Amino acid sequence: MEAVERGSHGARSRVLEGYLMATLFYEPSTRTRLSFEAAMRRLGGEVLTTENAREFSSAAKGETLEDTIRTVEGYSDIIVLRHFESGAARRAADTANIPVINAGDGPGQHPTQALLDVYTIKREIGTLDGIKLGLVGDLANGRTVRSLAYLIAKYQNIKIYFVSPDVVKMKDDIKDYLNSQGVEWEESSDLLEVASKCDVIYQTRIQKERFGERIDLYEAARGKYIVDRKVLDVLPKHAVIMHPLPRLDEITVDVDSDPRAAYFRQAKNGLYIRMALLKLLLVGH
Amino acid sequence: MEAVERGSHGARSRVLEGYLMATLFYEPSTRTRLSFEAAMRRLGGEVLTTENAREFSSAAKGETLEDTIRTVEGYSDIIVLRHFESGAARRAADTANIPVINAGDGPGQHPTQALLDVYTIKREIGTLDGIKLGLVGDLANGRTVRSLAYLIAKYQNIKIYFVSPDVVKMKDDIKDYLNSQGVEWEESSDLLEVASKCDVIYQTRIQKERFGERIDLYEAARGKYIVDRKVLDVLPKHAVIMHPLPRLDEITVDVDSDPRAAYFRQAKNGLYIRMALLKLLLVGH
Amino acid sequence: MEAVERGSHGARSRVLEGYLMATLFYEPSTRTRLSFEAAMRRLGGEVLTTENAREFSSAAKGETLEDTIRTVEGYSDIIVLRHFESGAARRAADTANIPVINAGDGPGQHPTQALLDVYTIKREIGTLDGIKLGLVGDLANGRTVRSLAYLIAKYQNIKIYFVSPDVVKMKDDIKDYLNSQGVEWEESSDLLEVASKCDVIYQTRIQKERFGERIDLYEAARGKYIVDRKVLDVLPKHAVIMHPLPRLDEITVDVDSDPRAAYFRQAKNGLYIRMALLKLLLVGH
Repeated sequence: MEAVERGSHGARSRVLEGYLMATLFYEPSTRTRLSFEAAMRRLGGEVLTTENAREFSSAAKGETLEDTIRTVEGYSDIIVLRHFESGAARRAADTANIPVINAGDGPGQHPTQALLDVYTIKREIGTLDGIKLGLVGDLANGRTVRSLAYLIAKYQNIKIYFVSPDVVKMKDDIKDYLNSQGVEWEESSDLLEVASKCDVIYQTRIQKERFGERIDLYEAARGKYIVDRKVLDVLPKHAVIMHPLPRLDEITVDVDSDPRAAYFRQAKNGLYIRMALLKLLLVGH
Repeated sequence: MEAVERGSHGARSRVLEGYLMATLFYEPSTRTRLSFEAAMRRLGGEVLTTENAREFSSAAKGETLEDTIRTVEGYSDIIVLRHFESGAARRAADTANIPVINAGDGPGQHPTQALLDVYTIKREIGTLDGIKLGLVGDLANGRTVRSLAYLIAKYQNIKIYFVSPDVVKMKDDIKDYLNSQGVEWEESSDLLEVASKCDVIYQTRIQKERFGERIDLYEAARGKYIVDRKVLDVLPKHAVIMHPLPRLDEITVDVDSDPRAAYFRQAKNGLYIRMALLKLLLVGH
Repeated sequence: MEAVERGSHGARSRVLEGYLMATLFYEPSTRTRLSFEAAMRRLGGEVLTTENAREFSSAAKGETLEDTIRTVEGYSDIIVLRHFESGAARRAADTANIPVINAGDGPGQHPTQALLDVYTIKREIGTLDGIKLGLVGDLANGRTVRSLAYLIAKYQNIKIYFVSPDVVKMKDDIKDYLNSQGVEWEESSDLLEVASKCDVIYQTRIQKERFGERIDLYEAARGKYIVDRKVLDVLPKHAVIMHPLPRLDEITVDVDSDPRAAYFRQAKNGLYIRMALLKLLLVGH
């Protein structure tokens, strides 16, 4: 009886027993940190936590990222780095003699998020080739939708719809990239029409912090495209709603109980993707 | 020799091996957090620490507690929640599919403190039925004395004495409750007389932060009822002094060496109570 | 194959399995904390982390260090204490019934740093007796050089050179101590000449925070003695450059690739010293 209960909860592997992961976070992201730390522990590994890595480079102490990495690699077997500067993860990886995982580098990349998004689509829809994907919300500032558009373009027969307020439209660099990859895309202002045709609606939060003093623009953008029961009514039965979380009110709470609401399953997939990545990097297969 | 030494220190059980506890603290309480994390580790379990859970619900990110719980339950097997709002633990438990332990919800409850207090009385005095209990200090704002009065009322033939400065007297809701349960209580301004009759003197800190600008009222209240050598002189041999800690000077340091000073044993009992609770909730017996 | 890879990375001992270490940090020092926590985990032990121990003694809660220690010793088997007051570690050790390790007590001592420095010299040079040691930089405020001068004096035939800007010269207490121990020392303003004669050049950071408003004095002191390629050119082949880290620009980055640059190996030795200390204190041999 006990064994059964334990099986349903914990029952973790010991494949990473004896390995030590350092989470080096220069800006807070409790969600991402917890996900990596849970992944390491579920595989039997241990964790060194640094939530305030900025202290390393604080004014008084002024250490370079490279020096910090050289010190921390002496204590651990793998480093998970969250940094506020684009390119920081690249510099860290060039310095370190142990693996470095990029857990977000400012306006740069957040590759494990893109991996978990692609994995979620595959798991929910059963395929990546041939899917129709609606990207909704803040497409200008949302790192996740930009990375997802980039990664999904590597699959066949993709169609992408961009649905966003004018002030936060998808930027030309991604559009140009999709063109170069032969990916079909179009912009639309009709969320219901897009939802009726898609396999995946990927909603995102309008990022208030990017609007500065222009609260009026933010408020207008925020309310424009909401995923609610009306969207569910037209969404195909097999399709899903995704969201990188956290959400505010861009998905109404009454959507949560619909089986097509995939965002909490998506969050949990972050655990599995990070478990796979840690195992791959530490034991190699 | 090594085995003997290890036995006297660590020698922990592995009964919760493979289980992962998340401590989700929306306000700092290092004492309570350490106690829960030590309990989990003493049973072989692992811990995800979140000291700054408020980041989840910060202005920019604005996630509801319910969404945070749904995410964190994907990473862990049990959640220990400390929150600043009364009722938050209830909401979290209603949302989660895994156990949630209330580690204090603002002005609401702190149930594991009440459990460890009752356990300490039982262990120190040998019985709960029939005890005489003196509650001293800040009875208006002290969550612990309120919870203890509530819980002890479930036992037989209890007598409670309230000894407090006028500005922080026990409130009517608890008095009414005790009346409804048939528990005898009285108010007294004579700590020595009460101490001479009690099995347990439960002293508490006057909470400065509740007095705002009225430092004069605070100072008057603070010095009024001190547990010192004079109290020990009249206290029965079998009786004990308890305190939820931290203390300022409401118990003088020269009391610490008396065997009836039970407050550090009481703090340690918090570890055992939390071990029992974690085992009960995770493996069920 | 897997076993080999694991051996090269993790492969930790289980000698401290079942032991719990509490890191009680009243001021942040992520580097020191990580080093202790890695040491404990590499030996199979578990860790309770407290980065904000000041909360215990915060204005509202006002607990003495002694009371905090009595509580934390109930949860753990050994305490690593970082405090802002000189003598705090001594008081904690006098209170506790479990071992307390001083991880730095304000302007007082940082004994594990001195141990790792001496260990590094022994390991890099092969001997401690008879070495010539150049202490460079902020000798007035640098806790590490003061402790190192003190500890190295216990060996035979030591010669120490002090090379520092006038405003941060080595203080008389250490000079008097060295005299009383029969240790030869001299002051010099010629770093190249000292470097050509030494086994160890121990460079330190000029501590800006000690200069207050006198940024001009700080800037003058900071640039005066830099370890660069010119120093390497005169440094004996067998000698090493050490630094307690973090560094700013008092050692130029192009020195890092020279095999005589020992400072990152020195940082890693901190891990080994702390592993040895934890094992010694917990299992006794």
